[in-house]
Amino acid sequence: MLLHEPSKQDITEAYDRIKSQIHRTPLLTSETLNKMLGCELYFKCENLQKVGAFKFRGASNAVLSLNKDDLEKGVITHSSGNHAAALSLAARMKNVPAYIVMPITAPEIKKKAVAGYGAQITFSEPTVKSREETAAKIVAETGATFIHPYDNYTIIAGQATCAKEILEEVNELDYLISPVGGAGLVSGTCLSANYFSQNTKVIGAEPKGADDAFRSLRDKTIYPSINPETICDGLLTQLCEKTYSILTKYLNEIITVNDESTICAMKIILERMKIIVEPSSAITLGVVMDNPDKFRNKKVGLILSGGNVDLDKLPWIKTKN
Amino acid sequence: MLLHEPSKQDITEAYDRIKSQIHRTPLLTSETLNKMLGCELYFKCENLQKVGAFKFRGASNAVLSLNKDDLEKGVITHSSGNHAAALSLAARMKNVPAYIVMPITAPEIKKKAVAGYGAQITFSEPTVKSREETAAKIVAETGATFIHPYDNYTIIAGQATCAKEILEEVNELDYLISPVGGAGLVSGTCLSANYFSQNTKVIGAEPKGADDAFRSLRDKTIYPSINPETICDGLLTQLCEKTYSILTKYLNEIITVNDESTICAMKIILERMKIIVEPSSAITLGVVMDNPDKFRNKKVGLILSGGNVDLDKLPWIKTKN
Repeated sequence: MLLHEPSKQDITEAYDRIKSQIHRTPLLTSETLNKMLGCELYFKCENLQKVGAFKFRGASNAVLSLNKDDLEKGVITHSSGNHAAALSLAARMKNVPAYIVMPITAPEIKKKAVAGYGAQITFSEPTVKSREETAAKIVAETGATFIHPYDNYTIIAGQATCAKEILEEVNELDYLISPVGGAGLVSGTCLSANYFSQNTKVIGAEPKGADDAFRSLRDKTIYPSINPETICDGLLTQLCEKTYSILTKYLNEIITVNDESTICAMKIILERMKIIVEPSSAITLGVVMDNPDKFRNKKVGLILSGGNVDLDKLPWIKTKN
Repeated sequence: MLLHEPSKQDITEAYDRIKSQIHRTPLLTSETLNKMLGCELYFKCENLQKVGAFKFRGASNAVLSLNKDDLEKGVITHSSGNHAAALSLAARMKNVPAYIVMPITAPEIKKKAVAGYGAQITFSEPTVKSREETAAKIVAETGATFIHPYDNYTIIAGQATCAKEILEEVNELDYLISPVGGAGLVSGTCLSANYFSQNTKVIGAEPKGADDAFRSLRDKTIYPSINPETICDGLLTQLCEKTYSILTKYLNEIITVNDESTICAMKIILERMKIIVEPSSAITLGVVMDNPDKFRNKKVGLILSGGNVDLDKLPWIKTKN
């Protein structure tokens, strides 16, 4: 496991480590959207990544970085989302156990997804205390390695491989826009842009109703994410020291987007590009739609981070109760 | 324009004619769906074709096959669907007019789509008589060439290029499944399988509530499509002499699917593959889901013919009025 901010070599090594088990996801373009928005957009489709999210990159790098003894004891995390699914699949591909601590209140669909990847789920009360105690107990019993979804340099190096692929495929991007939650993905994106394409500015896309990272960078202190209100359910977490430090050094800016724009972007991506993405991904297009002047005639990469959506509740459709 | 059933050379020439202006659409696979259904599925993503449907292949071939004089006078069709959009775009790419006759009752979204591709729309009453009279009048005035959506060998040769691409990419497919409406696509698919992969059996997928082609082939007579009832709004039309004749010679069988299976297939494709397809396309997966024994351990190509869906009315979501 990496104990320092990933170097160029760390990211290259991460990519070599994981490339045979991840999808090299397509970088799609849309003439219609380019015309509509007056810029050149490149959509990196991590919704087509294994488990439907970029999280599989970091999780794969974490699992494949373990030494033989640790690997056999397995991995553990507490999460109910894409990181849990990603870690479960990465562990299964090495035939080692994945222990997932989930709040008993997690949606059925997420429990099923993680169980489907062969993880051993332990339910906790829906409090931080219960979750951490439950995880600590399993670590003590099994010796499994705890893999945090973003407060982990090996995870960040894995997520950085996404931007590395983009920058290999398209030269001289003016901007690269990544969603901001706990900031594992955007941190990795910043590092890859710094190492592989110095003139590409990285922008973080954050929901207006969960703008703790925006405020944290502005005020130079890490704010907790308290009662976030947004449809972007993958972007509710707060920065940690590691991601804060990377963003402070390399991130150009954070632009916040309201949910209305994000929903509109999600629908346009489905309508025009025929692919489904999470609100937490569509927000990157929301940034461009909200700021046409800034991006006019620019080459812009957008990371569509995931596509795991509850298809019974699409946000632009009012459903019957 | 072709006056005979397309030969191998006609299809190869069609492909050479259109290949620079169509997308070579991806052929996707899904480990999850393969495991779920016990077979090897290859999804040809014509939902990612220009205008969001395979129709752009045939329309391009028709427009690009016109001689210089005819080309300048433009093209005309009556349709409110994907063929109209496809013909409009193919004409615009050659800077010639496209005249589209549409019933005044056509959905707003379809009028907008066709208008967006620069076509000149003329509205008719929603009857066959009014539609044909309106078209005849425009032909008389402009000298434009009428391009039927499927009763046209040049169109059929264009649609055949879809299966040609599939069969170039994957060897020894056991089955190739295409939706059946007026049968331009499935006819072209039959021809390409016959010329390029003799051991591949072609299956037509038809809605149970619009099974006129199934009955026509069984009873050796072309039945009209009367009051079809299905969610597959691209598959409401009936066979013509040309398509009937090709299917009689080369089609292995038609399998009918009820809308419940089709809707389920559409949702699974969105959930697992993250792409949206029309019900008229999802029906091909419905065939496999309904007949697991037939397809077990087989290599099966499925043509996902289009992705133009009203996103405000997804069939598995009950909306508020």
